[in-house]
Amino acid sequence: MGFLLDNANIIALIASLLGLAFAGYQLRWILAQDAGNDRMRQIASAIQRGAQAFMRREYRAVFILVIVVTAVLVLLSFVPNSRMSLWTAVAFVTGAFASGLAGYIGMYTAVRANVRTTAAAARSLNGGLRVAFASGTVMGTIVVSLALLGISILFILFTRLLPPLEAVSALAGFGFGGTSIAIFARVGGGIYTKAADVGADLVGKTEAGIPEDDPRNPATIADNVGDNVGDVAGMGSDLFESYASSIIAAITLAALGSGLTPDKTLAGQVFPMLIAAVGLIIGMLSTFLVSAKEDATQERLLGALRRGVYAASGLVAAAIVVLGLMFDLGWGVIAATLSGLVGGVLIGYCTEYFTADSYRPTQALSISAQGGAGIVVIRGMALGMFSTVAPVLVVVAVTLVATAASGLYGVAVAAVGMLATLGITLATDAYGPVADNAGGIAEMAHLDKSVRQRTDAMDSLGNTTAATGKGFAIGSAAMTALALNAAFITALQGATGNGLSILMIDVLDARFITGLFLGAVLPYLFSALAMLAVGRTAQEIVQEVRRQFREIRGIMDGTAEPDYERCVGISTDSAIRQMILPGVIAVLTPVLLALLVIVGRGNIIGQFVGTTTLIGMLIGALVSAFMLAVMMANAGGAWDNAKKHIEAGNHGGKGSDAHKAAVVGDTVGDPFKDTAGPSLNILLKLLAIVALVIAPLLAGSPLV
Amino acid sequence: MGFLLDNANIIALIASLLGLAFAGYQLRWILAQDAGNDRMRQIASAIQRGAQAFMRREYRAVFILVIVVTAVLVLLSFVPNSRMSLWTAVAFVTGAFASGLAGYIGMYTAVRANVRTTAAAARSLNGGLRVAFASGTVMGTIVVSLALLGISILFILFTRLLPPLEAVSALAGFGFGGTSIAIFARVGGGIYTKAADVGADLVGKTEAGIPEDDPRNPATIADNVGDNVGDVAGMGSDLFESYASSIIAAITLAALGSGLTPDKTLAGQVFPMLIAAVGLIIGMLSTFLVSAKEDATQERLLGALRRGVYAASGLVAAAIVVLGLMFDLGWGVIAATLSGLVGGVLIGYCTEYFTADSYRPTQALSISAQGGAGIVVIRGMALGMFSTVAPVLVVVAVTLVATAASGLYGVAVAAVGMLATLGITLATDAYGPVADNAGGIAEMAHLDKSVRQRTDAMDSLGNTTAATGKGFAIGSAAMTALALNAAFITALQGATGNGLSILMIDVLDARFITGLFLGAVLPYLFSALAMLAVGRTAQEIVQEVRRQFREIRGIMDGTAEPDYERCVGISTDSAIRQMILPGVIAVLTPVLLALLVIVGRGNIIGQFVGTTTLIGMLIGALVSAFMLAVMMANAGGAWDNAKKHIEAGNHGGKGSDAHKAAVVGDTVGDPFKDTAGPSLNILLKLLAIVALVIAPLLAGSPLV
Repeated sequence: MGFLLDNANIIALIASLLGLAFAGYQLRWILAQDAGNDRMRQIASAIQRGAQAFMRREYRAVFILVIVVTAVLVLLSFVPNSRMSLWTAVAFVTGAFASGLAGYIGMYTAVRANVRTTAAAARSLNGGLRVAFASGTVMGTIVVSLALLGISILFILFTRLLPPLEAVSALAGFGFGGTSIAIFARVGGGIYTKAADVGADLVGKTEAGIPEDDPRNPATIADNVGDNVGDVAGMGSDLFESYASSIIAAITLAALGSGLTPDKTLAGQVFPMLIAAVGLIIGMLSTFLVSAKEDATQERLLGALRRGVYAASGLVAAAIVVLGLMFDLGWGVIAATLSGLVGGVLIGYCTEYFTADSYRPTQALSISAQGGAGIVVIRGMALGMFSTVAPVLVVVAVTLVATAASGLYGVAVAAVGMLATLGITLATDAYGPVADNAGGIAEMAHLDKSVRQRTDAMDSLGNTTAATGKGFAIGSAAMTALALNAAFITALQGATGNGLSILMIDVLDARFITGLFLGAVLPYLFSALAMLAVGRTAQEIVQEVRRQFREIRGIMDGTAEPDYERCVGISTDSAIRQMILPGVIAVLTPVLLALLVIVGRGNIIGQFVGTTTLIGMLIGALVSAFMLAVMMANAGGAWDNAKKHIEAGNHGGKGSDAHKAAVVGDTVGDPFKDTAGPSLNILLKLLAIVALVIAPLLAGSPLV
Repeated sequence: MGFLLDNANIIALIASLLGLAFAGYQLRWILAQDAGNDRMRQIASAIQRGAQAFMRREYRAVFILVIVVTAVLVLLSFVPNSRMSLWTAVAFVTGAFASGLAGYIGMYTAVRANVRTTAAAARSLNGGLRVAFASGTVMGTIVVSLALLGISILFILFTRLLPPLEAVSALAGFGFGGTSIAIFARVGGGIYTKAADVGADLVGKTEAGIPEDDPRNPATIADNVGDNVGDVAGMGSDLFESYASSIIAAITLAALGSGLTPDKTLAGQVFPMLIAAVGLIIGMLSTFLVSAKEDATQERLLGALRRGVYAASGLVAAAIVVLGLMFDLGWGVIAATLSGLVGGVLIGYCTEYFTADSYRPTQALSISAQGGAGIVVIRGMALGMFSTVAPVLVVVAVTLVATAASGLYGVAVAAVGMLATLGITLATDAYGPVADNAGGIAEMAHLDKSVRQRTDAMDSLGNTTAATGKGFAIGSAAMTALALNAAFITALQGATGNGLSILMIDVLDARFITGLFLGAVLPYLFSALAMLAVGRTAQEIVQEVRRQFREIRGIMDGTAEPDYERCVGISTDSAIRQMILPGVIAVLTPVLLALLVIVGRGNIIGQFVGTTTLIGMLIGALVSAFMLAVMMANAGGAWDNAKKHIEAGNHGGKGSDAHKAAVVGDTVGDPFKDTAGPSLNILLKLLAIVALVIAPLLAGSPLV
């Protein structure tokens, strides 16, 4: 035990290095696969160039922000009496770098795996699946490994250099760095991918009457680039941040002694890191379970995929029990952690129930498409709103169980438990866009129809498993944000050791109430900006595509090639420009509020703005963003699948009036589910982690 | 002063009787007007029969609920040690009756004024306007008078029969009764009106290609009935409840001494009633300012209408200052009340800015319609989300100013101030549906096109002024709910006399946090049910209309009359059936939660559910419902006006692709702005007032 306690960081470090090696091995395997004929390589190269150009531009813009924030953090550490450590700035830079790197490697792998998936799918379904799944595995493993690597190195460093509470306080900077990159990556990538998608569809499918991914559509490369920068890189940074933040929240609450007896402070900090380390190893091993025989049917493949995920969950659950008992943390902590794991599965199931066309809600939605676009949009909105109830009940149950079992620390380990199987769930999630891209390349390279059919089958397989991944993402976001808020509030007021904060506030204090209102409106403002950006960028692309059809003669009969680069350029420019405002709002709001609190101490301003305003804002944003995020994600997913359900030949099939109505629903759902919705997950954690980072400024002493 | 203090109830009583007399006089004048030719009378009679049949059915259903709730209240007053008075049940029945009566009289007047407006408009625009505006005046005056009458009579009675705190506690029953009816009226009427509207449009305009209100459309009478039972009767019960609840909240907080020095307890209770009484008289007088010269242009009419509202606001502001000084309540109370008045005007202005086509947001929305239905829906959603920011800032500012000026009592009088001009603002709001109906009758009776043009002009005039009314409704709902919540929490914990509640809670208590989540999800569940009901009922109507077109030969060439009654019957059945669940959820949720709290005292359940859960639920619902309500109302309003903007000849005009896209937006917006959105206003107050009514059960003693 003592050995494990003392060397947990080293063990986590070794596990993360193993993970990196495994990811490198998988990547090498992917690169060794056949990359297809010249035409395929040419298309893939265009997608690679577009994606790389976008990410360069994005990171350049974000780099400025990182510099500014780092400078501010450094300055704050030099303010007289400041208890904020200079190491917070170091952690921030490290977190930002690691998050960016996770996204970049994910993208790098995906844009190389896509064409190789096409080439492999030209031979067999199973071959294609293996390449695409390997790409997802690289992504899942990289995200988890980099997060664990960063946290373990910094933790080893900080615990040697700083007093315990200052060490965890500085560690929060790592989460802050990761979250800052994530919000820009999600918003920027989300705007790019959905604007290109909507823009390409609007002119291509609706006006010119050419199918999706047709090489004659000038926006088709931009659409494929979007899958890689939004769905792959954006998701990578996003989940990197979720994972890191949940561990940091647990470590912080353990250090503060919330929910643990004093002798368990160290064990409480080590426990989440070891769960993550074990989860990482189990995840890697489970990917081997996924491989199926060469002649497997699709049902078998889905079964194999599911078996992998369930096996990983079972093993992780066993590991949680064993680790909890080894460290003598008691059944309370174990129950709290397991409640998170179970809660994540339940939310994933709810997501699947409301968005998959094998269940009633989405089936009813596709039937309603016969009533026209208006009805299908109304019904989809209602479905999205209705679908918030079950996840809320799950979050409520997990919160009550976790806090009853082991106080606020319980909430944090519940989030860690939810994300413990991230490696493999992310792998099953992230291979979807690769399969999608592979199909696009097959179409553009005029390969045999059977290839596209195989990639479509892979894509739909991914959609089913992705629902579970989304459930984990959204549930863990709520639990992590709650844990971070708890850490912030506990840090403000001091640790009590009895598992409950003693920050009593007057619930009718106007500052608290107005804080709630301000927090609740932030997700609306944020989503509005993101959706407006998608609409605006899509409009620009529509105009450019129309112009090319008009001015470049011969596009439609295939004698002239459209100017793909220009559409890529427009999407890039517009997405980068428009991701700034929502991102900056998210980062700056808590900082400005905190400054107002400090400025207002002891004078008239303090009567209107106080620490309670900040607390209200955090809680208001958490609750409001969670509802909106679930609503948008599920409505968007249901519209998407209702459209696919009709395309599969139901209610009139492709080209029917019902299909046209469903396409409108899907268009509305695109920015819901892939831009605004997932960004909200990050928003609520970003607000919470910024508050945690600046907590030492608000309290008299660091974390006390 | 002493005289005023002692006789304020009598003064309020007299003012309300004057109001009733004035409304009666106006109604007699309306009935004396020409009701047009036989065909017109016949159509009007069909609308009357349909509306009356619906309201009979609705009230029958609601009557059962009233019986059940009354029985429960009576039972609770007999529970040993219960401090809930039997008079609460009496107040509940009175409130329910008065609310139902206000809605019924509004409907009764409107279905008689509509055809008379058509007849008058056949002669002159001004004549038509006068009849329609008189109908709005009856409604506005009746609502305000009945609320004030009920409160003053009960207050006179209760203060003689009961100790002071029990008297105000019982008075809350009046608000509860009004709110219970209001939620059913809004939801039931809202489902009816929008389902009939959407259903009629979908088949009529889109499939059969016949214009709105065409007599060949079997759903056209149902559509007109809907305007009266939803927009008129529903709004009547709704605003009756707002008005009554705001006064009750102020009286309760004054009785509890929140924000007032002990010697001002009585003055604080009398002040809101006298503001209401003076506001009623001023409102009646201001309606005379509205009448314009026979040859006035529309701009002049709008000017006249606005002058009426602004004059009323100015006079009420002066009355607030005078009354505040007379009762020596101090400038704090005066400032708080005025802040509400100003806040209401500001939110009204924001509503107008975001929804009127004379401003950029709605203009940009109509431009985006050229991009297709998907884009216009995305953009409208974004507009709705964005538009929540300004009203939130206004509510935040009013709350901070009001509480800084005079504590929680300040919040309540801010709501009273916001609603003080309700008589006239409601008059300008409620005449819209009458003008709309008048146009429908003109169309169906094949009157000259000029008549329809005049009623359309009146309708659009109403749309502009209605925005202000909606601002008052939504802003006052938030302030009233906040005041009711404050009254509930103060009642639980006891009055302190220093203007601040002393209910300190642990903000990280899992029960509080989970309460917030549960409260926040309620508006989503509620809206989902309301919108699903609209979609479902609209589908039934669509099928019936299609059946009639198919089976009744000669409808399209005008040789056979469609079966209007069946469409009316289907809308009625379906709306009544589907209003039950959301209404019952709203009423029962706080009651069940309170029962759980009581059951859980001192045992394991209490660890998971406590009074803090209930408080969290109230606050979570308030914040969440406010956001959703503003978003839905403004998105719906903007889509409606964007469609009208295009119909006025912009971006391709009627029949263009942009117009078709805008029609989809409008279809989505209908249940947003007229069913779910306004129902949410009531939901948040209903939860709060139910809690206030059952507060004596939760505390050891009544209101302490």
